[in-house]
Amino acid sequence: MIQSPRGTRDFLPDEMERRRFYEGLLRQTAQGFGFREVQTPIFEEAELFILKSGPNILNELYAFKDKGDREMALRPEMTAPTIRSFVNNMSNDPKPIKVFYFGQCFRYERPQSGRYREFFQFGAEIIGSATPQTDAEVVAAAVSMIKSLGIKQYRVRIGHIGILKRKLTQAGVSAEKMPEILQKLDKKLYDEARPMMDSCGVSKKDADQIVALTETVGRIEILSKVPGEESDYLKQVLSYISAMGIDTPEIDMGVVRGLDYYTGMVFEIEAPVLGAEKQICGGGSYTLSELFGGEKVFSTGFAVGFDRALLALEKEGAVFRSKKIDAYVVAASEDMKLKAFEVVGILRKKGISADIDLADRKMAKAMKHASSVGSKFVVIVGSEDIKNLSVTLRNMESGDQKIVKISDLCSEIAH
Amino acid sequence: MIQSPRGTRDFLPDEMERRRFYEGLLRQTAQGFGFREVQTPIFEEAELFILKSGPNILNELYAFKDKGDREMALRPEMTAPTIRSFVNNMSNDPKPIKVFYFGQCFRYERPQSGRYREFFQFGAEIIGSATPQTDAEVVAAAVSMIKSLGIKQYRVRIGHIGILKRKLTQAGVSAEKMPEILQKLDKKLYDEARPMMDSCGVSKKDADQIVALTETVGRIEILSKVPGEESDYLKQVLSYISAMGIDTPEIDMGVVRGLDYYTGMVFEIEAPVLGAEKQICGGGSYTLSELFGGEKVFSTGFAVGFDRALLALEKEGAVFRSKKIDAYVVAASEDMKLKAFEVVGILRKKGISADIDLADRKMAKAMKHASSVGSKFVVIVGSEDIKNLSVTLRNMESGDQKIVKISDLCSEIAH
Repeated sequence: MIQSPRGTRDFLPDEMERRRFYEGLLRQTAQGFGFREVQTPIFEEAELFILKSGPNILNELYAFKDKGDREMALRPEMTAPTIRSFVNNMSNDPKPIKVFYFGQCFRYERPQSGRYREFFQFGAEIIGSATPQTDAEVVAAAVSMIKSLGIKQYRVRIGHIGILKRKLTQAGVSAEKMPEILQKLDKKLYDEARPMMDSCGVSKKDADQIVALTETVGRIEILSKVPGEESDYLKQVLSYISAMGIDTPEIDMGVVRGLDYYTGMVFEIEAPVLGAEKQICGGGSYTLSELFGGEKVFSTGFAVGFDRALLALEKEGAVFRSKKIDAYVVAASEDMKLKAFEVVGILRKKGISADIDLADRKMAKAMKHASSVGSKFVVIVGSEDIKNLSVTLRNMESGDQKIVKISDLCSEIAH
Repeated sequence: MIQSPRGTRDFLPDEMERRRFYEGLLRQTAQGFGFREVQTPIFEEAELFILKSGPNILNELYAFKDKGDREMALRPEMTAPTIRSFVNNMSNDPKPIKVFYFGQCFRYERPQSGRYREFFQFGAEIIGSATPQTDAEVVAAAVSMIKSLGIKQYRVRIGHIGILKRKLTQAGVSAEKMPEILQKLDKKLYDEARPMMDSCGVSKKDADQIVALTETVGRIEILSKVPGEESDYLKQVLSYISAMGIDTPEIDMGVVRGLDYYTGMVFEIEAPVLGAEKQICGGGSYTLSELFGGEKVFSTGFAVGFDRALLALEKEGAVFRSKKIDAYVVAASEDMKLKAFEVVGILRKKGISADIDLADRKMAKAMKHASSVGSKFVVIVGSEDIKNLSVTLRNMESGDQKIVKISDLCSEIAH
């Protein structure tokens, strides 16, 4: 028996309805903030992702050669494609450009709880603006999206990668050595970060300061411990976030985001209910367009891990109720079969969702099927009623039934 | 400059909004018929598509080996994955199962007008029922979908591949030789089909009859020329279609659908406005589940070529109006910047879609940007008005402006 590939999923009707519902909430919130949707291809030249993340990314990519011998890759994320599309198609549009996207991404990794080889991201980018307001708008949009899903417990942490990068540079770390040290600092693996810094010639005192910086966590007041322009900038970002009526995020100078393309403000949202793999959203400010052949343009963006966000909702006990079908039409006897199709046709044309027996079932079995598809009403088309242009309408929840004129059927069902 | 891969497309905001709108119409119609959405992975084991369509399909597939050396392929269509998912996950559910899907498919072919290497299909399947009602329901759903998009000119042709397959078998064609002959007959390439039949030992008389059969085209009455159970079956299908208030399709015994997995009723919908590449929908009844390791289950389904359907709408001159953003908030002076963010926050929380200047623009330039993003209203936050908890509301279409209490702003905008 052929199965779906490892790490991928089939979404069945109940689950799919739930996913589309939450996707809709995210889309509505993004549009409410003035973001507009874009879509890029499922695969891109592999080079695009190597330019953004370095050659190591190849280990995690679904890469393949097309028949023209070009190296392609299923997209592992959608920021690079979105910026590529901006460079190709939108670079002359009035800035800032506010776009969002939703879709499948692919990463060849060991499948585990909440991590899949085919996973879904919902993200947004503001392209062409480098102001505290821009960063605030992005954080506010991300928080509002998480809120709109109905996730009750979440934690927003905001930092500034620029301070850390500047301190590391001043302490003697080269641009080349920076990424691996940042990665260790991101994971708070100080035992590994310290020898690396040491081998770059960073003094014990500087290393202590750098470690202390990544451990600076607290309310807004803590920024007084980290003087400098980045700190003033973050204060401004926070003031705009709070003006918009969004709870002020925690300050955490240890938010490093693993990816070395971020340049300034960085943030993460986590859902504690998820335990170890708790991050559901991450973002920050960056420049990428110049790597893809465009002008250098400042951007700020984020992505919500859609699968993990849904898992958080599930673990918090959120209940999604499937919208049932309005009516199921049943012929009471063989000679009423065509009439039953007439009735279902009338209902559908009036915008009532309606299903009908297709399997030549006797009435009792058809009623059972109506109940298994979860119909709210059953419409029974019988030869006596039909003489008066009527049918029997049965409410499947209450069990009540009454005779209704076909001309009144839609209003009875939709009431 | 890195471009999107050949034959793929970037969808920009206006186009994407249009696409989501029409996708929504198709989804609504499918749900109105009692179909429920499913989703399968973007790639599958290549074997799945080879089992369905034969090894020649490999030439058109984006196939690749994953890191476990398994042969994978980007899906070229979604019927096989949907049936695979049925076999894996839904085979014990009450039948018939009515599902629909929407998403990207991939075919490695020469890009041309309305044909892309990454294209979009919207399809539906009724699984587990083999009655005339089932086939009628599928045709009615397909026609209603095309209608719901607003395509004015379309032609529905219905046939029965079973008659042709039976005649070919009786005339001496083996199951092995059948597909290539059917392919030629599908394209009306009789000069090529006749020698093929001849080499299978088909008599001149039988070949004449077979060719004549594929040229049997007309209204329902023409079925009297093709006696047999298939003809009676088609008449029943047509009676159910017409009971549902759907215009009766044309009969066309030449609808062969190229794919040899169809077993009975087959149909196509074309939009003449598209010229040579005019087919926008095709479907029929088939069995596939037994090829994928399940029990043999009869199904009927169809797929709408979403890109071509949208092209038909465009060529018919259909106009899609983008939903503009409701409000754009502008600070009249530097000291009103934070207040402006308060106002945008209030609007968004009340469900008003609202954007705000992020680029520290002076008022005149911000007004210009408001107009370029197409906002219906501009909200000007000025220091005098704000003393009375008011702002200036400007209607960008009429040019009218008035002073409005912040507490009344949402109702003024939403009115």
